[in-house]
Amino acid sequence: MAPEQAATSVADAYAELESRVERLTNITAGAGVLRWDQEVVMPEGGTQARAKQLSTLSSISHEELTDPEMGELLDELEDADLDQGQSAVVREIRRKYDRATSVPTELVEAISETTANAHPVWMEAKEEDDFETFAPTLETLIEQKREYAEHIDPDADPYAVLFAEYEPYLDLETAERVLERLRDELVPLIEAVAESDVELGGAFDGEFDADTQEELSRDVLDALGYDWDRGRLDTAPHPFSTGTQFDARVTTRFDEEDLLGSITSTVHEFGHANYTLGLPDEEYGTPLGESRDLTVHESQSRLWENHVGRSAAFWEHFLPTAADRFPALSDVSPRDAYEAANQVYDDNLIRTEADELTYHMHIIVRFEIERELISGDLAVEDVPEVWNDKYEEYLGVRPETDAEGCLQDIHWSHGSFGYFPTYSLGSVLAAQLYAAAEDDVGDVDAQVREGKFDELNGWLRENIHRHGATYTTPDLVEEATGEGYTADYFIDYATEKYGRLYDLEAF
Amino acid sequence: MAPEQAATSVADAYAELESRVERLTNITAGAGVLRWDQEVVMPEGGTQARAKQLSTLSSISHEELTDPEMGELLDELEDADLDQGQSAVVREIRRKYDRATSVPTELVEAISETTANAHPVWMEAKEEDDFETFAPTLETLIEQKREYAEHIDPDADPYAVLFAEYEPYLDLETAERVLERLRDELVPLIEAVAESDVELGGAFDGEFDADTQEELSRDVLDALGYDWDRGRLDTAPHPFSTGTQFDARVTTRFDEEDLLGSITSTVHEFGHANYTLGLPDEEYGTPLGESRDLTVHESQSRLWENHVGRSAAFWEHFLPTAADRFPALSDVSPRDAYEAANQVYDDNLIRTEADELTYHMHIIVRFEIERELISGDLAVEDVPEVWNDKYEEYLGVRPETDAEGCLQDIHWSHGSFGYFPTYSLGSVLAAQLYAAAEDDVGDVDAQVREGKFDELNGWLRENIHRHGATYTTPDLVEEATGEGYTADYFIDYATEKYGRLYDLEAF
Repeated sequence: MAPEQAATSVADAYAELESRVERLTNITAGAGVLRWDQEVVMPEGGTQARAKQLSTLSSISHEELTDPEMGELLDELEDADLDQGQSAVVREIRRKYDRATSVPTELVEAISETTANAHPVWMEAKEEDDFETFAPTLETLIEQKREYAEHIDPDADPYAVLFAEYEPYLDLETAERVLERLRDELVPLIEAVAESDVELGGAFDGEFDADTQEELSRDVLDALGYDWDRGRLDTAPHPFSTGTQFDARVTTRFDEEDLLGSITSTVHEFGHANYTLGLPDEEYGTPLGESRDLTVHESQSRLWENHVGRSAAFWEHFLPTAADRFPALSDVSPRDAYEAANQVYDDNLIRTEADELTYHMHIIVRFEIERELISGDLAVEDVPEVWNDKYEEYLGVRPETDAEGCLQDIHWSHGSFGYFPTYSLGSVLAAQLYAAAEDDVGDVDAQVREGKFDELNGWLRENIHRHGATYTTPDLVEEATGEGYTADYFIDYATEKYGRLYDLEAF
Repeated sequence: MAPEQAATSVADAYAELESRVERLTNITAGAGVLRWDQEVVMPEGGTQARAKQLSTLSSISHEELTDPEMGELLDELEDADLDQGQSAVVREIRRKYDRATSVPTELVEAISETTANAHPVWMEAKEEDDFETFAPTLETLIEQKREYAEHIDPDADPYAVLFAEYEPYLDLETAERVLERLRDELVPLIEAVAESDVELGGAFDGEFDADTQEELSRDVLDALGYDWDRGRLDTAPHPFSTGTQFDARVTTRFDEEDLLGSITSTVHEFGHANYTLGLPDEEYGTPLGESRDLTVHESQSRLWENHVGRSAAFWEHFLPTAADRFPALSDVSPRDAYEAANQVYDDNLIRTEADELTYHMHIIVRFEIERELISGDLAVEDVPEVWNDKYEEYLGVRPETDAEGCLQDIHWSHGSFGYFPTYSLGSVLAAQLYAAAEDDVGDVDAQVREGKFDELNGWLRENIHRHGATYTTPDLVEEATGEGYTADYFIDYATEKYGRLYDLEAF
C-alpha cells in the first residue's frame, strides 16, 4: 500500500472510531441525566419504568462498545502512527473494549439483576439491623464479581482486576502500600489526638434552618466561582455531582443540626463538578474530554473540601458570609470555625461523618475486608465480627449494631468491590497536588484568605482538568507535580495540621 | 409445518417484536426525560451537548425501528392469528416501520439539520419582526417536507401524509370537513358576540404574585386529583406535559397580570398528564400502554380546560380556594369568575391567548395557509399578506407586524406542517366525549360543583385511557360514544354557552 493510502485509511479509521465513541458518550451522558433526574426530581412512581429505561441504555452501550467492528478499528489503529491525543483515545477505548468483550453477556446481566435486587435487600437489612438478610445476596455478588474478574484476567488477583474498574492505572500494590502507610502513620497520630487535652469544636452547635443553609451553600458556590450557566444546586439524600463540561451539577443535603456538614458536602461536590467543568469543550465526546478515573476525581473534591474548605484561611474569608445568613454565628471567631471544622471524633462509627484523619481508618477496614472476601479468605458470615474487631483495633470504637457497622455503606450492594480505596488515594493525591500548586502559584492560603481562588483553580485547570484522560494517572501526577504519586505530602500535611491543632509535642 | 410449531413460532416472533418495541419505548421515554430536563431545569450551557445526546438517541431509535429483522417479524405476524391487543401492536409498529423505512436516512438527517438551525433563525426573525430572515429557511423546510411526504406515499396529497404524522387515523377529508363547519358556524357566532352589548370579564384584573399563583396551581391539581406520586409541577416558558403512566409531569407558566392564564394552562396540561397516567401500567412498553395520537390527546386537555375549567360549576367549587390564596378575589362572585373565564376577545391576534371560539379561526388560517404552502399554490414570500388578509376576514383584525402575525408560532420552525388542525379536532372531540360522559354518569356539572371529579375521570379512564392505542381514533370514538366522530356536540355546546353568556337571541 502506498503511504498516501495508508494515511487516508488511518484517518478514516480514526474518524470512524471517534464517531462511535461519541455515540457512546452521548448515551452515557443521557443515562447520567436520567440518574440525576431519578435522585433529584423524579416522582417515586417512576422508579420501575426508569430502571427499564436505564437498562436499555446500558444494553445499547454494551452492544455498541463490543461491536466486532470496534475491535477491528482498534486493531488497525494500534499499529498506526497516531498523535498523543489519538493514542490516548485508542488506549482508553481498547481498555474498555477488552474488559467488556471478555465478560459473557449472561454474567453481566446476572450481575445487573443481582445488584438491582440487592439494593432493597440491603436497605431493609440496614433498617432492621439484620445482616443475615443481606448475607446471601452479598455472597452471590462476591461469587459473581470473582467470576467477572476471572473472565477479564484469569492470571491476576481478582481484587486487583476489580480495583482497576475504578482506578485502572495505579496498581493494587501502590494502593496497598499507601493505605498501609496511612495506617502506620495515622494510628499513632489519632491516638495522640485522643489523649490530647485540647478540645475543639462547638462553634457550629445549634439549629440552622434548612432554607437558609441552602442560601449559604449558594454563597459558597458563588465564592468558589462555580459557573451557574453550566450547573445547578439541588438536594439529594446522598449528595453527588454529575454531568459533562457543559452541564455539571452539584447536589448537597441539609441537616438542621449540622450546618458544617452541608458546607463541606457542597464544597466537596463543587470539587467534583469543577473538575468536570474544566474538561476541554472541544474534546466532548471522547476520553480527551472526560475525567481521569476515581483517584483523580476524588483528589479534586478532597482538595477543595479539605485543603480549602477546612483551612483557617477559608474561614477567615467565609465566616462573615455565614454570619450574615445566620446571625447566631456573629460571636464565632474564624479560629473557632476552623477548629470546629477540624474536630477529630474519637467515637465516630460512620465513614461519611468522619474527620480527615479517622476517615482513612474507615477505608482501611473496608479495603482489608473486601480483599479477603474476594480472595475467599473471609466468609461472609464472619464479616460483622471482623468488621467490629477492626474498628476496635484501628479506631478504638466497637459498633453495637451492624446497621452502624458493616451495613452502613451502599457500595457492596452495588457490587462495587475495590471502590473504597480510591477515596483515600484521592485524599493523598489532593495533598500532593495542593503542595505542587503552592510551589507554582505562591501563597495559596493568602489568596484564599482574600477570597481569591482563581490562581489555584487556574493551576488545576492547566495541570489536571484540561488533559482529560490524555495521560494515565501516574503520568498525569508526574506531569503536574514533577514526581511520582506519593503519600509524603498528605502525611506531612496531616501531621503538621493536627499536631498544631491538638498541641501535640511529638508531631 | 405442524400447527403446534406454527403457534410456537408466532409466539416467539411476537415476543421478539415486543422486546424490540419495548427497547424503542425505553429510548423514546429516556429522550423525553432529556427534553423535559432541557426545558425545565437544564443550565443554558448544556444546550449544545444536549442536542448531540438527543440526536444520538434519535438515530438509535431510527436504526432499531428500521432494522430489517423488524420488517421480517412484522411480515410474519401480519399473517398470524393474533389477539386484539397483539394485532394493534403489529398495526401500530407496521405504520411506523413503513414510514421510517420509506424515507432515505440522508433526508431525515437533512430535515433534522434544517430544523435544528431553523429554531434560532425563527426566534431572531420574530424578535426583529423580520419575516424575510425566516423565509429561506421556511422555503427549505417546505421543500424537504414535501419530498419526505412523497417518499412515504407518492400517490397521496403530501399534506395528507404530513397530517397523518400527528393524526394517522382521521383522514384529511374529515379534518377539512370539520374545520370548514367550524368556520361556517363560528364566524356568525363570533360576529354576533362582537355586536352584543354584553361585556364580560374584569373579575381577574390586577396583579397576582407568581409564587402564590404556583400554590394555587398546586391547589387546582390537588382538586382535580392529580397523582403527585407519579407527577410534578414545574414552570416552563411554553407549558407542556410529558412522561409515561408512571411519571407524567405538568409544566405551567405564571404571568403576574394573568392569573386566569396560569389556571387554565395548568388545567390544560393536567388533562394531558391525566390521560398519560390512565394508560395501563402493565402495558408499558408497547402501543397498548401508549396514548392515541394528537386528536385524542388534545381532546383530554381541552375537555378539562374548557368543559371543566371554564364551567360555571367549576368556579362555584374552586373560587373560595382562589380567594384563600388571593384575598383580593373575595369580592368576586362565581358568576363573575365564570364570565371572566369565557370572555371572547374580538381584537386578539395571538393563538395561545385566544378564547374557545376564536381559537378555531386561528387554526383555520394556519391550516389553509400550510396546505397551500405544501401544495405549492402559495409562495413563501406571500405568506404575511395572505395571513393578514385571512385574519381580517375571519377575525376582523389585521396584524400590524409579522411578529404578531405569521411569525408567532414555533411549529413551522420545527417543520411541523399538519400539526395545527389537531388542536381544533381535539376540541371538537372533547365536546363529544363530555356529552357521552354526561349520558353515562349523570349530571357531571353537579358533581364538579361539589368538587367531585371521580366519575368523570372514571368514565375517561374506562372509555379512553385504558385502551392505549388498541383502537384507531375513529374506532375509539365509536367505542366510547356509540357514534362516529362528529362536530355536532361542539357546535351545540359553543352555540348554547356563548348564546347565553352574550345574550344572543338568534343562537
